[in-house]
Amino acid sequence: MRTHWRRLSVVGVGLIGGSIARAARARRLCDTVVGVGRSRASLEPALAAGAIDVATDDLADGVRDADLVVLCAPVGALPGLVRAAWPHLGPETLFTDTGSVKRGVVAAAHGCSARPGVTFVGSHPMAGSERSGFGASDPELFAGRLALVTETAATDPGAVAEVAAFWESLGSHVRTVSVDAHDRGVAVISHLVHLAAYGLVAAAAGDALSLAARGFVDTTRIAASAEALWTDIFRENRPALLEAIDGYRRILDCWEGWIRAGRWEALEAALGRAREIREKLA
Amino acid sequence: MRTHWRRLSVVGVGLIGGSIARAARARRLCDTVVGVGRSRASLEPALAAGAIDVATDDLADGVRDADLVVLCAPVGALPGLVRAAWPHLGPETLFTDTGSVKRGVVAAAHGCSARPGVTFVGSHPMAGSERSGFGASDPELFAGRLALVTETAATDPGAVAEVAAFWESLGSHVRTVSVDAHDRGVAVISHLVHLAAYGLVAAAAGDALSLAARGFVDTTRIAASAEALWTDIFRENRPALLEAIDGYRRILDCWEGWIRAGRWEALEAALGRAREIREKLA
Repeated sequence: MRTHWRRLSVVGVGLIGGSIARAARARRLCDTVVGVGRSRASLEPALAAGAIDVATDDLADGVRDADLVVLCAPVGALPGLVRAAWPHLGPETLFTDTGSVKRGVVAAAHGCSARPGVTFVGSHPMAGSERSGFGASDPELFAGRLALVTETAATDPGAVAEVAAFWESLGSHVRTVSVDAHDRGVAVISHLVHLAAYGLVAAAAGDALSLAARGFVDTTRIAASAEALWTDIFRENRPALLEAIDGYRRILDCWEGWIRAGRWEALEAALGRAREIREKLA
Repeated sequence: MRTHWRRLSVVGVGLIGGSIARAARARRLCDTVVGVGRSRASLEPALAAGAIDVATDDLADGVRDADLVVLCAPVGALPGLVRAAWPHLGPETLFTDTGSVKRGVVAAAHGCSARPGVTFVGSHPMAGSERSGFGASDPELFAGRLALVTETAATDPGAVAEVAAFWESLGSHVRTVSVDAHDRGVAVISHLVHLAAYGLVAAAAGDALSLAARGFVDTTRIAASAEALWTDIFRENRPALLEAIDGYRRILDCWEGWIRAGRWEALEAALGRAREIREKLA
């Protein structure tokens, strides 16, 4: 199993891609890092910081000689990037991504014609931030964080193990999940939570904002996240997100009914169950 | 205007009351601190820590000679405590509280028969924590935090200024608001946010929890708060909370409709407005 990479190609050198490049460099996991971006100018900061050795705006060139390719683009762009990169990948290339939704990108890879030695395994490092861009990147972004790796009936177990080992070498602990469990799970634990936080800010817009204290500030930190990225995620994970919203609404509707009816014991018991669950995460 | 207190009486020596006692002591704002609790045993930790000089479970005794009395009990208990303490307050006593809802406690004080020199002014330090009890108290809890002071047409402006000066002497910055503006404002900025956070935990209960990352942990920190305290707050602020829930639901329903209909530009614009508002708070 490979744990050192001759040529790592990072497609999209923003918060996540920049952090991967810097972490791989700092941990001496590869010889050369190639950064692929929309323009060479957009890659200048990463070149200047020494995070990447080579900058290119040509996807085919950028992935051609790599033995590890990581796509770090917005989720909506991933299926197209998988298809565009596929014919240019060299033999023995391990190919992964970092998208927050796995259905589309995994399906795109499965739809590509088989090529000996070339394998795609979906990844999702649970290590974002409300910030974005290379300027927000951090070589320690993945340390101590969870990285999810998806597997399907068609995925080569050896490739899954190599991708898992890659995330572990960046300091992450890894869980392997099915694509469906991933997309449903993150819909509830991440996508709904972002939508709800944006909604709390929208609900508070106006005079009440001047009363904001630490509780509000912490609870809505993720509502400072880039809306284009999150709209893209919501679009890609629409069915699971709609289910998650429905579950959340049913809970709030039930609690609102208890508040209206003065059923305080029922409410307190439900809040207590949530509190117990939350305390275990701390 | 008084800025030093001969005898400070703190009724309820938990997170908030304990922090007030310790802050007043650390900043040399008073000569003696009296702690009033349900039992003397419950006050032992505060006595042992030197946060209070005198411990009593007798409210009348505890407030009798004080020139500043601060009620730090759960909001549902505040109206009864105001009425019970009132006849025992000495002349020239400044009387305030720290409750998260102001309607009930202010009405209780207004309902008490006028006594020369005795004035009640409602306060609400926006400086809680998901923790509770004296063990969680912190003499710096109020430093740099907002303290809200309520005024009504009947409130003596000199007393409002003294209460404001008291919070400033603990390091807070003070805003004076009407009772109605307070209760509606905190319903949105604090009470709804707590209910929503508990709801997100309840929605995620199950397999998805094992995927929780920093976003979920931060957004739901306040769902580790004591459910009895928050049920009490929700009960006391029911009308304003129901309005806040209604406003939040209308936003989420609208966004859900856009997600269902694929109106991504409208959603992105709305999330962008929330993001801009949130960024200004950072």
